[in-house]
Amino acid sequence: MKIKKVAIVGASGYSGEVLVQLLLNHPHAELVAVTSRQNAGQTLAQVFPKFASHPKSKMLRFVEPNAEVLAKQADVVFLALPHGVAAEYAVPLIAAGCVVIDLSADFRLKSADIYKEFYAHDHPAPELLKKAVYGLPEIYRDEIKKSLLIASPGCYPTSILLPVIPLLKAGLIKPAGIIADSLSGVSGAGRKAEIDYLFCECNESVRPYGVPKHRHLSEIEEQLSLAAGTPVVIQFTPHLIPVNRGILTTLYLAPSEHFSDAAGATKLGEKISATYQTAYANEPFVRLLEGNALPDTKNVVGTNVCEIAWRLDPRTGRLIVMSAEDNIVKGASGQAVQSLNLICGWPETVGLV
Amino acid sequence: MKIKKVAIVGASGYSGEVLVQLLLNHPHAELVAVTSRQNAGQTLAQVFPKFASHPKSKMLRFVEPNAEVLAKQADVVFLALPHGVAAEYAVPLIAAGCVVIDLSADFRLKSADIYKEFYAHDHPAPELLKKAVYGLPEIYRDEIKKSLLIASPGCYPTSILLPVIPLLKAGLIKPAGIIADSLSGVSGAGRKAEIDYLFCECNESVRPYGVPKHRHLSEIEEQLSLAAGTPVVIQFTPHLIPVNRGILTTLYLAPSEHFSDAAGATKLGEKISATYQTAYANEPFVRLLEGNALPDTKNVVGTNVCEIAWRLDPRTGRLIVMSAEDNIVKGASGQAVQSLNLICGWPETVGLV
Amino acid sequence: MKIKKVAIVGASGYSGEVLVQLLLNHPHAELVAVTSRQNAGQTLAQVFPKFASHPKSKMLRFVEPNAEVLAKQADVVFLALPHGVAAEYAVPLIAAGCVVIDLSADFRLKSADIYKEFYAHDHPAPELLKKAVYGLPEIYRDEIKKSLLIASPGCYPTSILLPVIPLLKAGLIKPAGIIADSLSGVSGAGRKAEIDYLFCECNESVRPYGVPKHRHLSEIEEQLSLAAGTPVVIQFTPHLIPVNRGILTTLYLAPSEHFSDAAGATKLGEKISATYQTAYANEPFVRLLEGNALPDTKNVVGTNVCEIAWRLDPRTGRLIVMSAEDNIVKGASGQAVQSLNLICGWPETVGLV
Amino acid sequence: MKIKKVAIVGASGYSGEVLVQLLLNHPHAELVAVTSRQNAGQTLAQVFPKFASHPKSKMLRFVEPNAEVLAKQADVVFLALPHGVAAEYAVPLIAAGCVVIDLSADFRLKSADIYKEFYAHDHPAPELLKKAVYGLPEIYRDEIKKSLLIASPGCYPTSILLPVIPLLKAGLIKPAGIIADSLSGVSGAGRKAEIDYLFCECNESVRPYGVPKHRHLSEIEEQLSLAAGTPVVIQFTPHLIPVNRGILTTLYLAPSEHFSDAAGATKLGEKISATYQTAYANEPFVRLLEGNALPDTKNVVGTNVCEIAWRLDPRTGRLIVMSAEDNIVKGASGQAVQSLNLICGWPETVGLV
Repeated sequence: MKIKKVAIVGASGYSGEVLVQLLLNHPHAELVAVTSRQNAGQTLAQVFPKFASHPKSKMLRFVEPNAEVLAKQADVVFLALPHGVAAEYAVPLIAAGCVVIDLSADFRLKSADIYKEFYAHDHPAPELLKKAVYGLPEIYRDEIKKSLLIASPGCYPTSILLPVIPLLKAGLIKPAGIIADSLSGVSGAGRKAEIDYLFCECNESVRPYGVPKHRHLSEIEEQLSLAAGTPVVIQFTPHLIPVNRGILTTLYLAPSEHFSDAAGATKLGEKISATYQTAYANEPFVRLLEGNALPDTKNVVGTNVCEIAWRLDPRTGRLIVMSAEDNIVKGASGQAVQSLNLICGWPETVGLV
Repeated sequence: MKIKKVAIVGASGYSGEVLVQLLLNHPHAELVAVTSRQNAGQTLAQVFPKFASHPKSKMLRFVEPNAEVLAKQADVVFLALPHGVAAEYAVPLIAAGCVVIDLSADFRLKSADIYKEFYAHDHPAPELLKKAVYGLPEIYRDEIKKSLLIASPGCYPTSILLPVIPLLKAGLIKPAGIIADSLSGVSGAGRKAEIDYLFCECNESVRPYGVPKHRHLSEIEEQLSLAAGTPVVIQFTPHLIPVNRGILTTLYLAPSEHFSDAAGATKLGEKISATYQTAYANEPFVRLLEGNALPDTKNVVGTNVCEIAWRLDPRTGRLIVMSAEDNIVKGASGQAVQSLNLICGWPETVGLV
Repeated sequence: MKIKKVAIVGASGYSGEVLVQLLLNHPHAELVAVTSRQNAGQTLAQVFPKFASHPKSKMLRFVEPNAEVLAKQADVVFLALPHGVAAEYAVPLIAAGCVVIDLSADFRLKSADIYKEFYAHDHPAPELLKKAVYGLPEIYRDEIKKSLLIASPGCYPTSILLPVIPLLKAGLIKPAGIIADSLSGVSGAGRKAEIDYLFCECNESVRPYGVPKHRHLSEIEEQLSLAAGTPVVIQFTPHLIPVNRGILTTLYLAPSEHFSDAAGATKLGEKISATYQTAYANEPFVRLLEGNALPDTKNVVGTNVCEIAWRLDPRTGRLIVMSAEDNIVKGASGQAVQSLNLICGWPETVGLV
Repeated sequence: MKIKKVAIVGASGYSGEVLVQLLLNHPHAELVAVTSRQNAGQTLAQVFPKFASHPKSKMLRFVEPNAEVLAKQADVVFLALPHGVAAEYAVPLIAAGCVVIDLSADFRLKSADIYKEFYAHDHPAPELLKKAVYGLPEIYRDEIKKSLLIASPGCYPTSILLPVIPLLKAGLIKPAGIIADSLSGVSGAGRKAEIDYLFCECNESVRPYGVPKHRHLSEIEEQLSLAAGTPVVIQFTPHLIPVNRGILTTLYLAPSEHFSDAAGATKLGEKISATYQTAYANEPFVRLLEGNALPDTKNVVGTNVCEIAWRLDPRTGRLIVMSAEDNIVKGASGQAVQSLNLICGWPETVGLV
C-alpha cells in the first residue's frame, strides 16, 4: 500500500498530541512535519516525553507553520488549530492540492451566517463551505472518501449524533424536544494556561458551563436537521468533570410511538434495537452495549470507540440513550485518522486498534 | 440554652462521620453515644483520626447498638443506618420517648405500598409513617419543630426538591415532563467494601447508573406531587463522578407560560426571580446565584448550603435550573442537624456555619 | 477581648483565600481590607463564591494595594505576596506602626547573602531581617508574642522542622545526613495560570521537581542549624502529587545512638517518645500518632494540625519520621493566624478549631 | 513465526487485565484460556467491557482454574495469583512441560527461609526455587531465554533495581545506606474489595504504609546483593498516591567517590552517564532522560518503559536517582510479556510497543 505523507499544523495541544501518537504509529502514513509556534525548534521527544521511545521522535522537530512549505512536503495536512485560524491554512493548502482534515469548527457548518451567529466573527473562507464534508464516517463514509476537505466533528457532537441520527432517520423519535446532557473531561478545554482549568480549580469540582447556548449546538442541530428532514432545535448542557479524558452524554428523547407499560416498551424496544443493529452492528467503532451494561468513560478512553446503551421508561414514556467516547480520540483525532484511512483507501481501522 | 444529649446509631459510615463532626462541635448538643457493630470498643479518635484533636474523641468509644440503653442516655437519636434496619431502632426509641432523626429512607414516604414497590420489602413499621415529618426545613419547618420522628431527606431529593418546589407551588412550571439529571460524588455510595467503588474503578470514570428507576424517585415524586397538588412523575438519571463529595443536578423544566424570545424570557425571568426570592432570600442554607455564576460543587462542599441558578432558553422555551450541594452535609448530616436545631428551639444555623 | 482590625494584601491566591476564610470567621479579628490588583472592585462573594453565605462577603470589596491607606485601616496586616514584593509593603507598614505577618520568604532568613543565593536577587529590605521572628509558634512562641514582624514559615519547612527540631535539640539524631522526601498537593504552586499546573498535566501524574536545590532549603537549614547548634545541610526532594491540598514528608534520620535489634529499638524508642511528648504533648496543633497509625494527608486537610509518627528500623539502624499537614493551613495561613493569636494575647487556638 | 498458545490463571485482577490486553493483541501469541473462580462462565467482553471490540472477547470465556486442563491447552501459562497460591499451579504445570511465567512473589527468592521471614508461611515448593529465573530482562536476558520458570519481578523492585544495579556493578556507589522512597498508584493494591482502597479513602489522600519492612524488600535486597557481590540492606518506604497507575521512586545513594563542588560533580557525572549509557542505551524499555527532564509517571503509564534521571548534589555529596514506570506494565504484565518474547525467540518488543 502506498505510504502517504502527512503533516499536523498545531501539534502541541491535546488533539495534536494524540494525532502525533496515532500518526507516528500508523503503518501507512509517514509523519513528515509538525508545526507549533511556541515549540518550533524542539523535537517531538522534547515536547512529548511519552513518545521519546519512538525512533522518529528525536529526529522530527516542530517548525513554524507555513502553508507553502507544508504543501510541498505532505499529501494530507491535519489542522489542529482554533476556529478562525484553521481556515487561513486550509485555503492555500487546498489550492496547492493537499487534502485537508480540519479538526476545528471552521468547515463544519453549511451556512456562513450560522457560523457568524455562533462564533461571533465572519467566516474566513465561505467559498470552501460547499466543498467540505462533515467527517463523521458512520454517517458520511462515501462522501469522505471523495472529499479534499474534511471538517472533522467536535467531541460533543459526535457523542450526540451517533446515538440520535439513526433514531431520527428511522422516525422512531420526535425531532422536537431533544435534550442532551453531557459531561466532559478537562482536556476538552485544550492545553491553555487559564486559571479555570488549573488542577485545584477542576479537581473535586463538578460544574455546568455554556448554558444554554454552547457553540457546538450549531453543528449538532444542522446534522440532526439533515437526518430528520426538518429543522431540529435541541437543549444541550455541557458539564466539566474532573477526569482527563472522556465524554458521557445522556439523551432524553420522545419516542414517536406512545408506550406506558412493559409490553409497550418491549415492542418499541425491538424496533430501537433493530434500528441500532442495522446502523451499527458492523461499525468497528460503535459498540452497542447489551444486557445491564451502561456506558462508562473508562471503557472507551484511549480507544476510537463510542459506546451506546438505551433504556425505555414506561413511567414517563421516554427513551433514554447514553453514550461514552474519548473526547480526544473518537471525539477528535481518532475520528480524523478514520477519515484519513477512508480518503486513502486503507482499511478504516488501520492505526486505530 | 439547655444542652441536649444526642446519640448516633451507625456512626462509622460517611454520613455518620459528618454527624460526629457536626455534633462534636455543636455548642448545645452533647454527643453521648456512638454505635457501630464493627468498631465497638474503639474510640472516635481511633476510627476517625481526623477528629483526634477534639478532647472528647479519645474518651468516647463506639458501642454495640442497643435501643434500650440509648433511650436512657440520649434525648435525640440520629439513625445513620441502611433502610429497613433504621425502623427497628426507631420503634423502641420513639416508644421510650426519644426524638428520632432518621437519615435512612424508612420514614420518608407516606405510603407503605410505594415503599414496598421501591425498596422491595414490606415496610417494617408502617404505623409510624403517619407520625414522621419529611425533614426538609425550607419546606416543612413548622412541622419539624413539633415532630418526634424526622425522616431526613436523601441527597438527590434535596438537590431536586429545593429548586423545583417553589416553581411548582407558584404554578410557573408544568408538573409534567420534569427531567432531573444528577451527578454525584462517590461518598454517596457509602463506606462499603465493594469492587465498584474502589479508587481504580471510579477514578477517570464517568457513568450513569440506576436508569430509569432509582429508589429516590419515590420520595422525590411524592414531595413534588404535594407541591403541585397533582401527581407528578419525573425522569431522573443519576451519574457517578470521581469526586469525594458533592451533587450537581441539572433540571429541565417546561414553563407554564410560553416564551420564544429575549423579551419573553425577561418577563418570565422576573417572575422566576421573584418566586425564588420569596422562597429563599432569607433562607440561610439556600444561595441564589447572581449574574453569570453557575453552581459548582467545590463552592458548597463542606457546607450546608444548596446553590441554585437558572437560565431560560428562548430557543427551546425551556427553563434550566441547576443546583449544587454537599451530598453528605445538606444532602444528609447537615440537614439532619438543621432539624435538630429546629426541634430544640435553637437558632437554625447553630453548629452549621 | 478587644477586636483587632486586620487586612490581607494579596488575598486572591490560595493562601489568601484560606486567610480570608479564617479571618472572616475569627471571633476577635475584624477583616477590614483585602487587596488584589486583578480583582479590585469585586466583592469577596464574587471572587470566592464559597464565602458568599457570610454576611460580610457581599460588602467587603477588593481594593488596589496601598500601604499608606492600609496602615490607617488595620492594626495587623497579612502579606500573601510573592517573595521580593512582600518587603515593599512590609517596610512602610512597619514604619507606620502596623504589625506585619508575612507569608512570603522575604523575612525568614537571618542572612541577606543566603537570601540572595537562593532567591537570585538582592534582599529588598535587609535592615528588617533582624527585627523579624520566624513564625513557627511551637518553637518561637515567646518571640512571636513580642514581635512586630512575623516571617511565617513555608509549607515544606513546617512539615520538616516540627518533627526534626526536638530530636536535634535532644541530641537524639546526628545533624549530618538528614534526608527529607516531601509530597505536595498542587495548591502549593499557587493560583497561577501555567501549563504545568493544568488539571490534565497534574492529574494521573507524580513527579519530582526542584532537585537538588529547592529554595525552601535555605530556611530549613538555617532553622535546623539553630536547633543543632552546628551547621546542618540536608537533602530535600519535593514531589508534586495530584491532590488539592496536603504535604506528606518522610524523613530519614540517623540516631546518635547505635541500635540493631528490637531491644535496642525499644530502648531508643522510649527516648524518642519522651522527647516528642515533652515537646508536643500539650501543643494543640501537633498530633503524635499512636499504635499502628501513620500520617495521612486526608486526616489533616482543612485543619491546622501537623501529624507526626515515627518508626525505628533495626535492619538499617535508621529512624524514619513521617509528618502530614495541610500546606495552606498549618503550612501557611493557619499558622499565620496562630501567630496573630499570640501577638494579640488571645488563646492560641481561637479561630482555628 | 510459530504461534504459541498462552493461558492466564487469575485473569480478573489488574495485572490479569493488562495481560489479557497485551496477549489479545500479541501477533505471535494465541490466548487460549483465562481463569477466574468468580467470573467463570463469563466472556472477556463481559468482565472487561473495554476489550469488547476485540473479536475474540466475545468467544473466550473465563473458566475455573485447572492445571491439568491448562497444561494440555497452553504452551506458556501466566500466573497472576496471590503469593502462596501461585506455586500450587506452577508445580503441576512445570511437571507437565509448560513454561510458567509467574507474576507472584513465589519464586523470586533463592532462599525458602527468607521467603518465610517475609511472607510468614513456609514456601510451598522450595524445590522449584533453583529452577526459577528472576525475570528482569535487562539483567537476566540470557537466563530467561533458557528457563521454564520465570519469576517476574514486583513493581517496586523493578523501579529500584533498574536504576541501582548498574551503579553497584560499576562500583560507583557504596552498597551501604541505600534509601528508596517510592510512590505507587492504587492499582498496586489489587482489585480487592477493601475499605482502605475505596475511592473516598484514597482520593485526596497521601500516605506511607508498610514502614519499615515491606515484603518486596526481600527480593530487592537479594538482587542488589548479587549485583554488589556483598550483602545489601536498604531502607524502603512505599507511599500510596491517588493515581490509578504508576510508580515514582526516588533513590538516595552515596557515591564511592567523594565530591563536594561542581567540578567534582562533573567528573563523577561523566562516569555515571557512561555507566548508564553502557547499561541501557540500547535497551528498548529503559529511557535515560536528558537535560532538565525528570521522570513523570504520566509519561510512562500505558507503556513498558522505565524512565531514569539522576542528579548529583555537591552540597551533600549524594547521588539522587529517580525512576518512573507503570506498575502494571513494566512493573508486572508488560515485563512478563517481555519474558515471553525472550523465551519464544521473538523480538523482545513485539506486542509491547
